Amino acid sequence: MPNSAILFDIDGTLLDTNYLHALAWRRAFLDAGQNVPTAELHRRVGMGSDLLIQDVLGPRAERLSEQISASRQRHFDALSAEALPFDGARELLAAVRARGALVVLATSAGQRDLAPLLDALGAAGLVDEVVNGDEVGAAKPRPDVFLVAMQKLNLGPERCVAVGDTIWDVAAATRSGIGCVCVRTGGTTRHELLEAGALAVYDDTAALLTGLDGSPLSPLFAR
Amino acid sequence: MPNSAILFDIDGTLLDTNYLHALAWRRAFLDAGQNVPTAELHRRVGMGSDLLIQDVLGPRAERLSEQISASRQRHFDALSAEALPFDGARELLAAVRARGALVVLATSAGQRDLAPLLDALGAAGLVDEVVNGDEVGAAKPRPDVFLVAMQKLNLGPERCVAVGDTIWDVAAATRSGIGCVCVRTGGTTRHELLEAGALAVYDDTAALLTGLDGSPLSPLFAR
Repeated sequence: MPNSAILFDIDGTLLDTNYLHALAWRRAFLDAGQNVPTAELHRRVGMGSDLLIQDVLGPRAERLSEQISASRQRHFDALSAEALPFDGARELLAAVRARGALVVLATSAGQRDLAPLLDALGAAGLVDEVVNGDEVGAAKPRPDVFLVAMQKLNLGPERCVAVGDTIWDVAAATRSGIGCVCVRTGGTTRHELLEAGALAVYDDTAALLTGLDGSPLSPLFAR
Repeated sequence: MPNSAILFDIDGTLLDTNYLHALAWRRAFLDAGQNVPTAELHRRVGMGSDLLIQDVLGPRAERLSEQISASRQRHFDALSAEALPFDGARELLAAVRARGALVVLATSAGQRDLAPLLDALGAAGLVDEVVNGDEVGAAKPRPDVFLVAMQKLNLGPERCVAVGDTIWDVAAATRSGIGCVCVRTGGTTRHELLEAGALAVYDDTAALLTGLDGSPLSPLFAR
């Protein structure tokens, strides 16, 4: 049994979905009469949904939250067929497993968003464990998703590294005592990710794959 | 006749379109078999189309450029009904005119993309001049669009300030001798815009409107 794990975020990290999420949110806020710039929504993708709505609307959130959530789900369902893995994503998961670490998917996304994404990723045989947003008390940037993952795996934070694409991934990992390596494919800049505390930033999964054995993940590899 | 002008970019500055452009590009590249991360396309929105394709694909661009351009046009046409002005955009144009400066729209976009955007902006009575991508030799980040605007207006660069949202706007303005004020609503960060040389960065058109009389635009106002 491997005694280390790499905890992968999905949206924006393994699959090119952050812009689809941003558009789904944009449409949902407009449906509720809220002309929120898409950029403001994009930079909050990766937060839990309730928190995102609260963060954007402040006191108005309470009245509109349920409507916006339902509308977002409908819009994302319509877009999710466009969710595709980044080049190198599957190969990265395979390479991590080949080096003797567990591959864990750890996401704020709930089961309904997740199902088509896992289909699109097509990596069922490469994944040891999945922790989704429905299983945890509070989504990223709270640490719960990583804490639940470590509990399931019975591994301490020193035996795990997270891979994500947003400052919410970095915050959640840091709060759970785990280091976080990032990719830029979610649309967050290298500067912002490093400023948030990322251990290293790679262009994309293909670049992380190429540099894997010199990366902050490599101390966790058994072979 | 006013002897100063504010040269406004449209996409991402006055209208919430950069994410629609990014998605149209994403779909067009996929149609051509190129799985380019949406984030890579997003950060190039605001460049001229030919340059964008060249910058993304390198030597493969020549073979695929025509197909991708045609495909992008089709996808953007389907999305352009979702293009809406940011809150405060029209009011900002009106406030600039009320202060005695000309309002000029200066964009890399060609006439076909521009027509529905101008309709959505609904600011025909607030605009003194429009320079679009079809009129100039080379799109942003080349300075041509601003050089043509200054020629049309018979004004020197010291009598103009640009307002944009991308590093391509800042580069084009700088190369034509014009200062550039930016908004963050295109999805480019304050850090990147300042690093590119922006005179100041505002959250959005509403924030620039609020701070207008203390902004780098104010030395150009007659009253």
